[in-house]
Amino acid sequence: MTPERLARIKQVLNTRQPDLRVLTDQVHKPRNLSAIIRSCDAFGLANMHVVWPKEGFRAFRKTAGGSFHWVTTHTHPTMDNAVTELKAQGHKLYAAQLSDRAVDFREVDYTVPCTIIMGNEVDGVNPVTAEQADEHIVIPMMGMVESLNVSSACSIILSEAQRQRKLAGMFDQRRMPDEEYNRLLFCWCQP
Amino acid sequence: MTPERLARIKQVLNTRQPDLRVLTDQVHKPRNLSAIIRSCDAFGLANMHVVWPKEGFRAFRKTAGGSFHWVTTHTHPTMDNAVTELKAQGHKLYAAQLSDRAVDFREVDYTVPCTIIMGNEVDGVNPVTAEQADEHIVIPMMGMVESLNVSSACSIILSEAQRQRKLAGMFDQRRMPDEEYNRLLFCWCQP
Ligand SMILES: C[S@@+](CC[C@H](N)C(=O)[O-])C[C@H]1O[C@@H](n2cnc3c(N)ncnc32)[C@H](O)[C@@H]1O
Ligand SMILES: C[S@@+](CC[C@H](N)C(=O)[O-])C[C@H]1O[C@@H](n2cnc3c(N)ncnc32)[C@H](O)[C@@H]1O
Repeated sequence: MTPERLARIKQVLNTRQPDLRVLTDQVHKPRNLSAIIRSCDAFGLANMHVVWPKEGFRAFRKTAGGSFHWVTTHTHPTMDNAVTELKAQGHKLYAAQLSDRAVDFREVDYTVPCTIIMGNEVDGVNPVTAEQADEHIVIPMMGMVESLNVSSACSIILSEAQRQRKLAGMFDQRRMPDEEYNRLLFCWCQP
Repeated sequence: MTPERLARIKQVLNTRQPDLRVLTDQVHKPRNLSAIIRSCDAFGLANMHVVWPKEGFRAFRKTAGGSFHWVTTHTHPTMDNAVTELKAQGHKLYAAQLSDRAVDFREVDYTVPCTIIMGNEVDGVNPVTAEQADEHIVIPMMGMVESLNVSSACSIILSEAQRQRKLAGMFDQRRMPDEEYNRLLFCWCQP
């Protein structure tokens, strides 16, 4: 471990946002999950929540490559379980969902504790979870195809969340609790 | 062809932006190219320019699925050829490139005729083309991984371009020349 590497690790941990999260509802293509987790890392997220598709999921760890190491992945047995846990932590739930009640993704506030819910490649966010979400958000589209790729959509939303949090000065001082900071510092420094 | 379908096709053609383009420099994963072309469609682009990787490229048409139909793909033998053609059309060239001269992607003007150049998954935009670009643009990152997935990066940039063009009223009246409008209307109405 070079001093530069250690400094970089500390710098990244100092900007991590424990209260901005992504939850995927049975997103099933490994490449989509990898791209999502890579964007989570790039935009300062420390945690991602996953409900695996019913068919199960094996290929993920391999294809996620590097980023898997830098974002803690929490697996939930059901969406209900994930939603209950995140609501208990005081999170607003923003479902990326192409519905009638959806608002422009730039109009919601990402500086509050919040979780962005991304839907399955075919079915979107399931109706029960969609009902429980505080807001539905949508990226305006003007083409023939009905939706964006799920990882593209997630990256666009996270980039806006990062913009808002930067404006609000939320990257300027460490926001991660000491205990988690120390645990991650230890993990990330392992060869 | 239902009247609703025809109305939708016309509406999409009416918002197409002939002078906003994407050029990929040997992007080689079919799934990345598909996600890029899907975002081009969603954000109102009518044209994409491609320099295939040296190994050649066969899988693309198949995996791009729907979107391939809605965005005209121009193939160039070399990046030099593509750059010359786009410069001759008066385009600013914005290379998405992680370099010292890169500026925040939100700082450049996407309302002028312009082309966004996306680099290869491993090597980025080649040095000669990077040198020829008017600007290098970068999406700010604060994680451990060195870059975003190329299709995520492209989607984020196009979403900003769309935002700027919407603000400027560029989606409010048809911008595509009659001849191309009529040609595409005919093509898109084929079963
Ligand atoms: C391929 S889409 C699924 C589309 C599905 N047929 C539907 O109508 O919900 C996969 C996921 O990507 C996200 N997504 C795609 N395009 C989006 C957009 N324009 N705005 C917000 N989220 C989007 C949503 O989370 C969606 O559930
Ligand atoms: C995986 S990256 C290639 C990284 C390559 N090692 C480099 O340093 O150029 C593939 C392409 O995605 C785009 N890209 C990835 N992250 C980006 C970012 N943060 N800002 C702008 N473009 C990015 C660039 O066009 C890049 O060439």
